[in-house]
Amino acid sequence: MAPDAAGPLVVQKYGGSSVADAGRITHVASRIAERAAGGERIVAVVSAMGDTTDRLIGLAHEITSAPRPREMDMLFSTGEAVSSTLLSMALHELGRDAISLSGMQAGIRTDAVFGRARIADIETARIERELAAGRIVIVAGFQGASDDFDITTLGRGGSDTTAVALAAALRADRCEIYTDVAGIYTADPRICPEARPLRDIGYEEMLELAATGARVMHARAVEVGALYGVRILVASSFESDAPGTLIHEESTMEQADKVRGIAHEQAIAKITVRGVPDRPGIAAQLFTPLAEAGVSVDTIVQNASIENLTDMTFTVERGDADEALRVTEALLPQIEASEVVADADLGSVSIVGTGMSTSPGFAARMFRTLFEHGINIELISTSEIRITCIVREAQVGDAVRALHDAFDLDRE
Amino acid sequence: MAPDAAGPLVVQKYGGSSVADAGRITHVASRIAERAAGGERIVAVVSAMGDTTDRLIGLAHEITSAPRPREMDMLFSTGEAVSSTLLSMALHELGRDAISLSGMQAGIRTDAVFGRARIADIETARIERELAAGRIVIVAGFQGASDDFDITTLGRGGSDTTAVALAAALRADRCEIYTDVAGIYTADPRICPEARPLRDIGYEEMLELAATGARVMHARAVEVGALYGVRILVASSFESDAPGTLIHEESTMEQADKVRGIAHEQAIAKITVRGVPDRPGIAAQLFTPLAEAGVSVDTIVQNASIENLTDMTFTVERGDADEALRVTEALLPQIEASEVVADADLGSVSIVGTGMSTSPGFAARMFRTLFEHGINIELISTSEIRITCIVREAQVGDAVRALHDAFDLDRE
Repeated sequence: MAPDAAGPLVVQKYGGSSVADAGRITHVASRIAERAAGGERIVAVVSAMGDTTDRLIGLAHEITSAPRPREMDMLFSTGEAVSSTLLSMALHELGRDAISLSGMQAGIRTDAVFGRARIADIETARIERELAAGRIVIVAGFQGASDDFDITTLGRGGSDTTAVALAAALRADRCEIYTDVAGIYTADPRICPEARPLRDIGYEEMLELAATGARVMHARAVEVGALYGVRILVASSFESDAPGTLIHEESTMEQADKVRGIAHEQAIAKITVRGVPDRPGIAAQLFTPLAEAGVSVDTIVQNASIENLTDMTFTVERGDADEALRVTEALLPQIEASEVVADADLGSVSIVGTGMSTSPGFAARMFRTLFEHGINIELISTSEIRITCIVREAQVGDAVRALHDAFDLDRE
Repeated sequence: MAPDAAGPLVVQKYGGSSVADAGRITHVASRIAERAAGGERIVAVVSAMGDTTDRLIGLAHEITSAPRPREMDMLFSTGEAVSSTLLSMALHELGRDAISLSGMQAGIRTDAVFGRARIADIETARIERELAAGRIVIVAGFQGASDDFDITTLGRGGSDTTAVALAAALRADRCEIYTDVAGIYTADPRICPEARPLRDIGYEEMLELAATGARVMHARAVEVGALYGVRILVASSFESDAPGTLIHEESTMEQADKVRGIAHEQAIAKITVRGVPDRPGIAAQLFTPLAEAGVSVDTIVQNASIENLTDMTFTVERGDADEALRVTEALLPQIEASEVVADADLGSVSIVGTGMSTSPGFAARMFRTLFEHGINIELISTSEIRITCIVREAQVGDAVRALHDAFDLDRE
């Protein structure tokens, strides 16, 4: 057994921009080699290089406008096969022993739902054998295999999910997600210059941020982390001196009774069905056909009814607005509603923090802040630790900056 | 079970130029779809698209000058994964049910000699299940998997070997190798305009032709075909009206006591060791170090000894000449030979035909023909069904044309 076979076990993940070309792959290899030299055992999960996925989609669409998901998954899987073997070669070039494994070889067993498979189980024997032999293990992210040995891909957030799930299965000391930003920010630094990376954040808070627009990490991977208690560090693969953000249990080192971050989304459409008879089953009659049409509905609000008639309002991504409108209009006679109106130029702003569940006054301060900045609230939805306001899309940036300031997020 | 599940079973192979772009892939798909519509069950083996392999080698060499074969095989295997999934998609687009399988999924088990693995066994269960479901099966050529589920590649002639081995394992009615030429020619048509495609040829003859320069099909795939009695049709994927050449048992439909083809090679070097003491073991002393240095020796000729001293002459590819010379010169003191001379501007011309084993006079006619055309013979080697002459490289073309004419190969 190699001398460092008992060192801490770390699962790392490098995204597509971190392995976009030979130079960056060599840079990532040198970072991994340094850690391995320090005694850590490393499993590194990689995404496909840069624009590989777009190139493969382009190839498929030269052949057919509707590729079958099974074939598409096999095609996509070549992207990570290329990046993982190249990273392994780069480690060899640096004199380190390393081996690349496909999702199948790494033991990642999924269901057979091509394009958005769920991990069923991870058989860690091969990875453990390679680690015990003193090797750095490179795993192709985003992919797995069904019981039938068909290649599957995990859909959005796939490589992050591979990394966190592997960390859970291997009982790794931690999982490190390397990306092109320095961690989880208090708000999107592109629209809020005062935003700063958080030192740590709880799973629940991260889930709410991810669900409402903070795209650094996909909610799915965070859920797996929360379920198995995997400590996840999100950090930059380019700036090695930035500490990154640690996602872990709720007890934060920063104060708990605070808003932790502001998330936002753009391109939201609001659909309002007017004059809906307020009778049982009406919501099912409306939303079942929308789900069947593949329209993903976010916030739903039903006004108090007046003379047994109510308004139902829901939001969808702007890209789904036309389809949502079409389905809803076709339902009008059946649900005996009077009309449908749509507003497609909206966005959202959310404040998130576990402290909100125990301390009052966050909602009032949020609404007052928006009012003072002349920002009208079109719709409100809340969870235990989040308040989301739908606002005009053009005012989303102002709203984020105003709330960042109002909740003192520029200060530790 | 699909209605055509009991039709004839045909394994086809399409090379890299046949699937070089989306248009050609769609063309191949339409050819396959037509055959399937006629009731045949089709398993199609594909190579990587056009220049994919060169592109992947280029990527690896941006990272390291000496990629490990295991990683290189995994990287290479992505080439056929792309072409096989795209061909499957093209069949779907034409309304046919099809499925792509990697070498591993197709059950191709190999040893773990990366870069030039040998097929150990083919587990046909998955392919048979897909065929029984009425699907066209597309198999990624050139690749397999070791017992450890590592991806291997089969080396030179790999996709042809995949196809012929699959045909043997599936007891297919025949194997069809589609390439960019119209079949096996009586000589290389690029240097002999009178050359014509043979209607059929025996396994042994094809093996001799392949070994001495007819590069349409690799000897290795022919060997598998001979071993399992697989009837192999070599034909063009571009000209669908050309009948191609059938490789099968010796009994040919054309007359047997004839030269069947002229093969040639260029860039041959001849190394002569002069004044070698004629004692037992001297050949081993010379050729063992050459083999250890990776030099592949072709023809070896030892002259009759004069006063217990002999000359030993052997040929190598020109690319190996410097290394062969270096190794041999270093051995001179040890084997007590007087000197080494090299001649690197040679080529070969061979006549092949099973009839030669029973009818005399072929060698004489060959030597006379070359003499009449002013072509000096530097070295001769023969097998049961082949005579090869080493000649000046500049005269190879003349030699091929003269022999093609002398043995009436322009006539059926």
